[in-house]
This record gives sequence, C-alpha cells and structure tokens, in this order.
Amino acid sequence: MSERAPTANAVAAAPSLATSGVVADPLVEYLLRHGDDRLILGHRLSEWVGHGPILEEDIALGNVALDLVGQATSLLGLAGAAEGRGRDADALAYFREAVEFRNVQLAEMPRGDFAVTMVRQFLFDAYDVLLTEALRASAHAELAGVMAKAHKEAAYHARHSGEWVVRLGDGTAESHRRAQRALDDLWRFTGELFAPDDVDRAMLAAGVGADLEALRPRWESQVREVLAEAGLRAPDGVLPARGGRQGRHTEHLGLLLAEMQIVARSHPGASW
Amino acid sequence: MSERAPTANAVAAAPSLATSGVVADPLVEYLLRHGDDRLILGHRLSEWVGHGPILEEDIALGNVALDLVGQATSLLGLAGAAEGRGRDADALAYFREAVEFRNVQLAEMPRGDFAVTMVRQFLFDAYDVLLTEALRASAHAELAGVMAKAHKEAAYHARHSGEWVVRLGDGTAESHRRAQRALDDLWRFTGELFAPDDVDRAMLAAGVGADLEALRPRWESQVREVLAEAGLRAPDGVLPARGGRQGRHTEHLGLLLAEMQIVARSHPGASW
Repeated sequence: MSERAPTANAVAAAPSLATSGVVADPLVEYLLRHGDDRLILGHRLSEWVGHGPILEEDIALGNVALDLVGQATSLLGLAGAAEGRGRDADALAYFREAVEFRNVQLAEMPRGDFAVTMVRQFLFDAYDVLLTEALRASAHAELAGVMAKAHKEAAYHARHSGEWVVRLGDGTAESHRRAQRALDDLWRFTGELFAPDDVDRAMLAAGVGADLEALRPRWESQVREVLAEAGLRAPDGVLPARGGRQGRHTEHLGLLLAEMQIVARSHPGASW
Repeated sequence: MSERAPTANAVAAAPSLATSGVVADPLVEYLLRHGDDRLILGHRLSEWVGHGPILEEDIALGNVALDLVGQATSLLGLAGAAEGRGRDADALAYFREAVEFRNVQLAEMPRGDFAVTMVRQFLFDAYDVLLTEALRASAHAELAGVMAKAHKEAAYHARHSGEWVVRLGDGTAESHRRAQRALDDLWRFTGELFAPDDVDRAMLAAGVGADLEALRPRWESQVREVLAEAGLRAPDGVLPARGGRQGRHTEHLGLLLAEMQIVARSHPGASW
C-alpha cells in the first residue's frame, strides 16, 4: 500500500473501501473495473471467431474483440502499476479469482445466439462511446490516453452493433423474435453500468473518473432511438442486477475464467 | 460445369483432374487450395485468442488469424464465382466435408503449445511471403489483387513469427527444447507446400499460378538462415507427408471442421 499513486492517496479514505477487504485503493479499483469489462466482453466476442455462420461477421467481431482485449491490456497494466505490487496485465488477467474481477455482469453473460451477442454488444457499445468520451479528459494522463484511442474504436463498434440491432429487429419474424428476447433478457444488466458507488464518486471528485449519472440519460435516449428504429421495446419494471463491480458474479464468469486462465496457470512464469 | 470461367476452360483438360472426381476445374481447385490453407490455419491461430498466457501475444496472433481468415474469405469467394454453382465463401467454408478441403496438412495440425504454433507459423509465413509475391503478378486480376494485399500482411506475419522462433530457439533450455521438437515434428509437412501437380502446372502455364519449384530454394535458404540464428536444426531424411491438396487429411481436420461448422449447419440459411 505504501506505493500508491498520489492521485489515489488523495481519495483512499472513502469508508466503504476500507471495509471491502479486497482492493482498498479506488484508483486501482476503477482501472480494474474498466479493464475487466473489456477483457471479459472481448473474450466472449472472440468465441465467435471461426464459428460462423458468416465469415465476414466473424472477422468483424474478431476485430472488435481484439480492440477490447487491447484496451483491457492497457487498463490492467495501469491498474498493476497503480497497485504497486508488481502484478502486470497478464498476472491480473490470468491469476485472479472470480471474486476479484470487477466487470459488470452484462459482460460475462454467455454469448448466446447471434442476437444475444449483438444486442449485448450494442447496449455496451452505446455506453462505451459516452464513457470513453468523458474519460478522454481524465486528470489521470495515461488513462486519458488509453480512452482517447478507445473512443475512436468504440464509435466504430457502436455503429456496427447498432446497425445489426436494426437489421435483426427489423428483419425476419424469427430475427425480430430473437432480438426482442435478447433485449428482454439483458436489459436488467444495464443498470449496473450507471450505478455510481464510493469508488466512482471518489474518482469523479478527483477529476479522474466519469459522471455516470450524467451519462445515463444520454445513453437511454440514444439506445431507445435505435430500438425504436429496430421495432424493439425495452422491457418495463425489471429488477436490476448488480454486484459485478463488487466481485459478485454469476457462474458464467467462473466457467469463462477456467477456460481463459488454464494455459497461464498450467505454465506459471513461462514466456512461451 | 457450363459456367466455368474462360481462364479455367483453357486448362481444364489436364488428365489427372478429369479422374479426380471431386473438382474438375483447375482454377477452382487452385483458389480453393490457397483459400483453405488460410481458413484452416487462421482458425487454428484464433484458438489462442483469450487463452493466454500473454495478452499482447494473444492479440498479435488474433490479428494474424483475422488477416488469414480475411484472405480466405476473398479467395473462397473467387473460387465460388469461378465454380459458377452459386456457392459463396460461407457455403464453401461451412458446408464442405473434410475430403473436399484442399489445404496442406501443415495447416490442420493442432495448435500444440506456443512453440508448435510459432514454428508452424514461421514455416508457413516464410512460404506465404514468396507465394503472395509471385501471385501479385497473376494473370487472374482478382487473385492478383487479393495477393497484393496479402503480401503486405504476410511480410508482417513472417517478421513476427521469425522473431519468435529466434527468441524460443535462442531462449531458455526449455523453450529451445520445445522449439526443436516442434521443428522435428512439423518439418515433414513442409514438402507439400512446394510439390506441384497438374493443377499447379496448368495454372503456371496459364500465367495464373506461381512456380512452386522456383520458390522452394529461396524458402529453404531463408528458413535455414533464421533457424541458424535460433540455434535450431531442420531434421534430415524425414519422409514427407502429402495428400492435403487432393483431399486426404488427418483426423485433426475433421475435428476442427466439426467445431467450425456446427453453428452454420445448425441454422442453415440463417443470416443472424
């Protein structure tokens, strides 16, 4: 803890952090959250590569996956540096347990069919465009740099997934049915993207983080516009799912990590 | 068969083709061969994405995989057009049986450990740089266009895999041992890359194809230079493996196709 970055020291006293027992430094926590979202979602997307049924789309999703994993590598690298315990991005990706991951549950949901993949991607991408836009101006210069690059990528991702949501929702009866079902299933996981806690408030106060409450209405308006064009309807009155940011995950994350981490854990320390 | 392209008609009489019983058009056959090499090898590489143990390298291999699958999509698209039976790249990728695939066996070998992946990739990339260089000047304008782009990608791929071969061969005792074992196992699959048959001769005569026999000594000299730098030694007197170009494959291809084709075959005709 003695090696915390100055920015983090300034805000480390937020009460709920001291008692969380896992990560006490809000800057580390903040970087892990946004790195983990990208690592886990990128992994989910990469499951499509080489599995069809459309080669062009495999390649497009593969490129989005690589963008997200690239962003994750940068953010986890910053988290490791801020933590000051000698863990690099690989150590954080491959040698943490599920309870130590900070991604939203939306990211860990199984890839499902193509409609689930695309609806989830659109809900995330629309958020990511706004988040990265805000974090380009972060007082944390390296975070700002990563997010400036990520913002350009997110804009492309959101255009791609948004077009697919319209194509699916406004397509055949079957594609519409699947897209609506995906939206019904996934909508409850979107609340977590915009639910600030002490970490978010501390980072916002320090000029490092984004104002999630200000992003939410913009996201909602943009998403509902695309859904209207697609002939899809966000469900009402769903009970929002929460907990990913605090390390409470579904069993899907454990299965994903088992697969993702096995090579690194079978050969600890190997660079081949 | 009445819809064959003119270029193909001019060379369709080569005797061994008429009796092969699967593909009678050497242009289609030629395009399938080079498309299939890339599709299958790209799929093998994509198996690394999200499986560590090095995030940066996952991303690098993922990018190579997407380059190869992109090239495959173009080449299979050309093959389908030349065939004139209404099959597009997706149909050719997802609805052929193993005996209809024309990739070299080198491409279908399991990914193995990181040393196997990198040694195989280097052996292929070194060939691919030379092949794509030659095919940039193909009389088949669309093939030439695909290969001109592929050549730039291949040059990057070969630099990357060549550096890794040196790093592994000239690294720790364990990485050297693994790289040498990979080379010992894979060397016998390289002969097939340079073994011209009637299809290759017909395509060369038509100005469409590459002169494989002229490429081989250049490949061998470049590969042996890198191996020398890596402290690795190509095995002597191995019996070359053959047959992939004629549809004779190992069981590894069947397993790869089962996984690659299941989504497309479960939902035939679906565009979502």
